[in-house]
Amino acid sequence: MHFHLISLFPDIFTSFLSTSLLQKAQEKKLISFHVINPRTYCTDKHAQIDDQIYGGGAGMLLKAQPLIDAVESIIRQLPWTEKQKQTAPDLKILLPSPSTEVFTQKHAYSYSKYNNLIFVCGRYEGIDYRFEEYMNTKYPSAFQKISLGQFILLGGEVATMTMIEAISRLLPGVIKETESRQNESYSLKSSMTNLEPPQYTRPEEVYGYRVPEILLKGNQQEISKRKADHSTSLE
Amino acid sequence: MHFHLISLFPDIFTSFLSTSLLQKAQEKKLISFHVINPRTYCTDKHAQIDDQIYGGGAGMLLKAQPLIDAVESIIRQLPWTEKQKQTAPDLKILLPSPSTEVFTQKHAYSYSKYNNLIFVCGRYEGIDYRFEEYMNTKYPSAFQKISLGQFILLGGEVATMTMIEAISRLLPGVIKETESRQNESYSLKSSMTNLEPPQYTRPEEVYGYRVPEILLKGNQQEISKRKADHSTSLE
Repeated sequence: MHFHLISLFPDIFTSFLSTSLLQKAQEKKLISFHVINPRTYCTDKHAQIDDQIYGGGAGMLLKAQPLIDAVESIIRQLPWTEKQKQTAPDLKILLPSPSTEVFTQKHAYSYSKYNNLIFVCGRYEGIDYRFEEYMNTKYPSAFQKISLGQFILLGGEVATMTMIEAISRLLPGVIKETESRQNESYSLKSSMTNLEPPQYTRPEEVYGYRVPEILLKGNQQEISKRKADHSTSLE
Repeated sequence: MHFHLISLFPDIFTSFLSTSLLQKAQEKKLISFHVINPRTYCTDKHAQIDDQIYGGGAGMLLKAQPLIDAVESIIRQLPWTEKQKQTAPDLKILLPSPSTEVFTQKHAYSYSKYNNLIFVCGRYEGIDYRFEEYMNTKYPSAFQKISLGQFILLGGEVATMTMIEAISRLLPGVIKETESRQNESYSLKSSMTNLEPPQYTRPEEVYGYRVPEILLKGNQQEISKRKADHSTSLE
């Protein structure tokens, strides 16, 4: 899986990408990251990436052209035939942004099947609408605007990090397979309430709170019943 | 606003916290960050933070005691009277975790009113349930378990970054006041669909796509009508 991240603040990802399991997954060549500053694709000599909004309004908007060019520079470098480039079969171009389409575990599964994911991070007041128009026209099956949730961020970067984590952990070898498979049941449920009853580890007592007797006794039949009861109570 | 982050991977936050507006907000003393590794509060000589799950199950669980002690070490250092410590009036203790309570702009507004936010980041299979029991009993009004959405992450860290961004931008002085106020209307709507119609910046034409004539002509009456029509169409 190759993640291509287009961001005005490429360094924001550095420590996130070099921590824990994502670092290990890169060392194992399971995933790779390629961060691109769209400013590189500005055509004027001052590399002005943003400008005022037509018709007025506070703040600045990112220009469409540098972002379009950044996306297409990535696509051009993919080892595809001309025909494959036309249909964009193994690619998603994701724009984290307010949208009625909200990211869930189902999206994470779906995106984890692609070899290339491009994330386009907006900033300031957003992106000139023609970026979306262009992508929707030229890459209708690949392009998707997706929201992380009902809240407002400073830019698309932390939404991108969140989606990277959710997607990466579904890729074979990134986390232990047993855990991965165990968690797959989550995606089939409409609620993300923990399907497991409360879990405990040592010691038996912490500040007066004890592990339930049933777990200490270790009777597997009773423990299975406890799990089943909890799961049923959520339905 | 003081953000206290409890994480097994304190370095994961470094480049996020030193980028753009969050960096500037720290320089302006509007926000501060304090990252704590709960391993510091392990009482055994190997600083073992996790252990196997009682009753069986794949993976490891974080121990309750080091996390409880980490939270309480923060609370002890707050400049409160003994009585204030009892009632925890100016503090939220947030545990990003699968939950029926999902983070929205309303939570961002609510949290932005506190002077101290503690984020407790889980990892692996989660945290010994007695951490929640303890917090719910001792800090019932301050403690809240909150989910970022219907997906599974590697830990609480990126959820924490996301919430930090959503909250920080609501604090006076972090972003320009005009933008802040303008965006407040978002929080009153149930849908996060962009309330503004498509926005454009220069140049007039990008790869054959043109700015709508109405915006180029600059007739403010027509432009206001365009905004109103778009907003109405979402209701």
